[in-house]
Amino acid sequence: MDDIDFAIQDFYPDEISYCYGCGRLNPQGLHIKTRWSDLQKTTSITCFTPTVNHIAVPGFVYGGLIASLIDCHGTGTAAMAAYQAQNRPWDSLPAHRFVTASLHVDYLLPTPLHDSNNQPIEIRLFGKVIELKQKENKIYKVRTSIVLFSQIDHFTQVLVKGDVIAVHMPDTFKGP
Amino acid sequence: MDDIDFAIQDFYPDEISYCYGCGRLNPQGLHIKTRWSDLQKTTSITCFTPTVNHIAVPGFVYGGLIASLIDCHGTGTAAMAAYQAQNRPWDSLPAHRFVTASLHVDYLLPTPLHDSNNQPIEIRLFGKVIELKQKENKIYKVRTSIVLFSQIDHFTQVLVKGDVIAVHMPDTFKGP
Repeated sequence: MDDIDFAIQDFYPDEISYCYGCGRLNPQGLHIKTRWSDLQKTTSITCFTPTVNHIAVPGFVYGGLIASLIDCHGTGTAAMAAYQAQNRPWDSLPAHRFVTASLHVDYLLPTPLHDSNNQPIEIRLFGKVIELKQKENKIYKVRTSIVLFSQIDHFTQVLVKGDVIAVHMPDTFKGP
Repeated sequence: MDDIDFAIQDFYPDEISYCYGCGRLNPQGLHIKTRWSDLQKTTSITCFTPTVNHIAVPGFVYGGLIASLIDCHGTGTAAMAAYQAQNRPWDSLPAHRFVTASLHVDYLLPTPLHDSNNQPIEIRLFGKVIELKQKENKIYKVRTSIVLFSQIDHFTQVLVKGDVIAVHMPDTFKGP
């Protein structure tokens, strides 16, 4: 149930699956999907193809979209890491769900929006957990380091670096 | 022409006015508008009312949207500060236009999406320039500190803090 063929967002409980970034039930949302990229489950991946409207200046991807991808990739990776640390499958309860406490993005190079034929191109984000904090067997904080690549150069050069501190969602966020 | 009744984004040249966040010509964009909040022009302001789809978990605003608002508020404030530093009106040439080099967001408290009657509520971001760097009369970097408030408590409590380092847009960004 936590095979690399699945995304963690597909396992979020329905009532918290409306996130504009990664909620599968938000009709207008981005539907960001985060999974493990390798069988050893050391690195998380999100693949995303921006639309023509996700533009900053002509030819380049909007930085706010990139920040959104990093945000949801960070919280998704945090949830995956929490299940992994507890050796629990993704459909076990209570569900792990994280929210962002802080987000840092360094835009090292502009991210191309399309190829030379004006066709949309994919971007990929990879994440690694650099800190996982727990107290009395409760995981309360996960920090993830994220790098972003573009299909334009076959995903070889880091264009953007991100750093997300995610905290376990307080019960007060879960609604009435 | 740089009265506080106008937004800086209304003066961006057409060819760079398609930004998903703040471009007036992007049909799907957020149309973020940044202006001076006071006659002394010491503080910039962006007002924005999220839609129901801009949700994180039920009742709260999506962090990626907040990052987007901070991003465009930071670059908009940078442009306003650059014209101000050179004592130039916003419609004078060459145009000042900035892109984001780095973005930092601290989500101190969740930002409410609606009031107790489920009606949409406004958020306001205020920015102050904390660093403006120039060399040979060219402004190349502006750093802005940003705070976000909600209508829910009449804009009294800081919910989010942002920090944007904006750099003058390289000529290579301006297209063919």
